Amino acid sequence: MKLCRFGEAGAERPGLMASDGSLRDLGAIIGDLDAAAYDQPVLDRLRALDVATLPEVKGPVRFGPPIHRPGHFIAIGLNYADHAAESGMPVPAEPVVFSKAPSCISGPNDPVIIPAGSTKLDWEVELAFVIGRRAWQVSEAEALSHVAGYLICNDISERAWQIEGTGQWIKGKSAPTFGPLGPFVVTADEIPDPQALDLTLDLNGVRTQTGSTRTMIFPVATLVSFLSQLMVLEPGDVVTTGTPPGVGMGKKPPLYLKPGDVMELGISGLGTQRQVVVAGS
Amino acid sequence: MKLCRFGEAGAERPGLMASDGSLRDLGAIIGDLDAAAYDQPVLDRLRALDVATLPEVKGPVRFGPPIHRPGHFIAIGLNYADHAAESGMPVPAEPVVFSKAPSCISGPNDPVIIPAGSTKLDWEVELAFVIGRRAWQVSEAEALSHVAGYLICNDISERAWQIEGTGQWIKGKSAPTFGPLGPFVVTADEIPDPQALDLTLDLNGVRTQTGSTRTMIFPVATLVSFLSQLMVLEPGDVVTTGTPPGVGMGKKPPLYLKPGDVMELGISGLGTQRQVVVAGS
Repeated sequence: MKLCRFGEAGAERPGLMASDGSLRDLGAIIGDLDAAAYDQPVLDRLRALDVATLPEVKGPVRFGPPIHRPGHFIAIGLNYADHAAESGMPVPAEPVVFSKAPSCISGPNDPVIIPAGSTKLDWEVELAFVIGRRAWQVSEAEALSHVAGYLICNDISERAWQIEGTGQWIKGKSAPTFGPLGPFVVTADEIPDPQALDLTLDLNGVRTQTGSTRTMIFPVATLVSFLSQLMVLEPGDVVTTGTPPGVGMGKKPPLYLKPGDVMELGISGLGTQRQVVVAGS
Repeated sequence: MKLCRFGEAGAERPGLMASDGSLRDLGAIIGDLDAAAYDQPVLDRLRALDVATLPEVKGPVRFGPPIHRPGHFIAIGLNYADHAAESGMPVPAEPVVFSKAPSCISGPNDPVIIPAGSTKLDWEVELAFVIGRRAWQVSEAEALSHVAGYLICNDISERAWQIEGTGQWIKGKSAPTFGPLGPFVVTADEIPDPQALDLTLDLNGVRTQTGSTRTMIFPVATLVSFLSQLMVLEPGDVVTTGTPPGVGMGKKPPLYLKPGDVMELGISGLGTQRQVVVAGS
């Protein structure tokens, strides 16, 4: 299943991308695709629907984030060795865990806003996943059974706020529109191997990031197990798993986002995102 | 107003501590004291109630956390100079911001569970506040108008997980029961000066932490304004503001929590907490 939310910001309806490419309205079936909707029993109920009976949505739509307000938005840093190197940081011995404010989440094609005070805004194409079953101190062997599905995240980062202040990356990861998600969540049954996905990010039409989840230092199963030793993961929690090389901070000289820049992101099977950068007010 | 939630874990009802000390049931007025309930218009509606008409709850009750699932649980580190010194860390030039998993929140008198793998469990009495009005890039002068109320937080910390791994404190701040909150939120109109509150924590009957919010490096108004430069603060977000000296990590030799230990916390006007430490399974 490909689950999405469509419509104007703040008034999105739940939807499903059918296998024929049509968009179907789930509004009569479920109130919204919020955190609770990603609980496995709810997903099982949606999976049992006869898609052909759902109303088809015609014409162009705006996609919102495919989950409304996760209870926790967790992020992993430096999860590709080449990206750690370009960031001037050592390859970590264990996953680097931080978080993003849930209020930063935006739709996959919404503008990315440069907040007042920002000087070093950067991009990061990442594979994210949604938790579908409560996980507390689970093994790597059982970890993937706790994942509901996968989606694209652009882990927008203000490098000065992230790195140059008094530590703790959350500061540079959390402003509004710093978390474009979607266009849809692809349920885990349709992604047999999350470690075989290609990632790309084009900046103004130029391929800037290229990677594969094959080269992750800590794969998804390890991340779920590791995180669950430290905290309870709950249905609807979103975890974004780190970025491959090619971010602006790693370029010589560094290159940061400016108004008018266009980012286009893609991950195998998970669709594409496109964001125009605009100045905040 | 003193707002609370009472009853068994997972089935709490919203309540109000009346000025005569009685507990009143708000269940007929509001479904729950969730994040949305701390939006100022909702609080204004509750404030207009005739408390005498609300059903009185007799007999001993368990208090749950006075807010059900904040959208974001933010924490400030090293916000008292003496605590920074005992932690062997410099006084920060700007607030150190991290977060705690919302799933760590527990009631003020619930047991604190030592999770499997923990070796260095520590306590931190802290003044926390709840946001009552959306804040984005607000000034210090207007900051306090965005605060709905104040409460006690024990910012339970696993020091090995927090500090000895690959950075980012969230790792040692987020296990279940690592966030006792309450017993109630005292609305801001009843706390004329949040920088004039005394904090104490007793461990097994011995006074271990003593402090005053007068000695905070970054007072509440500064924290609200600073955080709002970086991320949107939303009604129901909880921010815990750092701890005064006297934590276990700062003792010589360090002292960490073990099963059977009892922590008793108090802050002027905000009530008391009492937690027994138990081993996890």
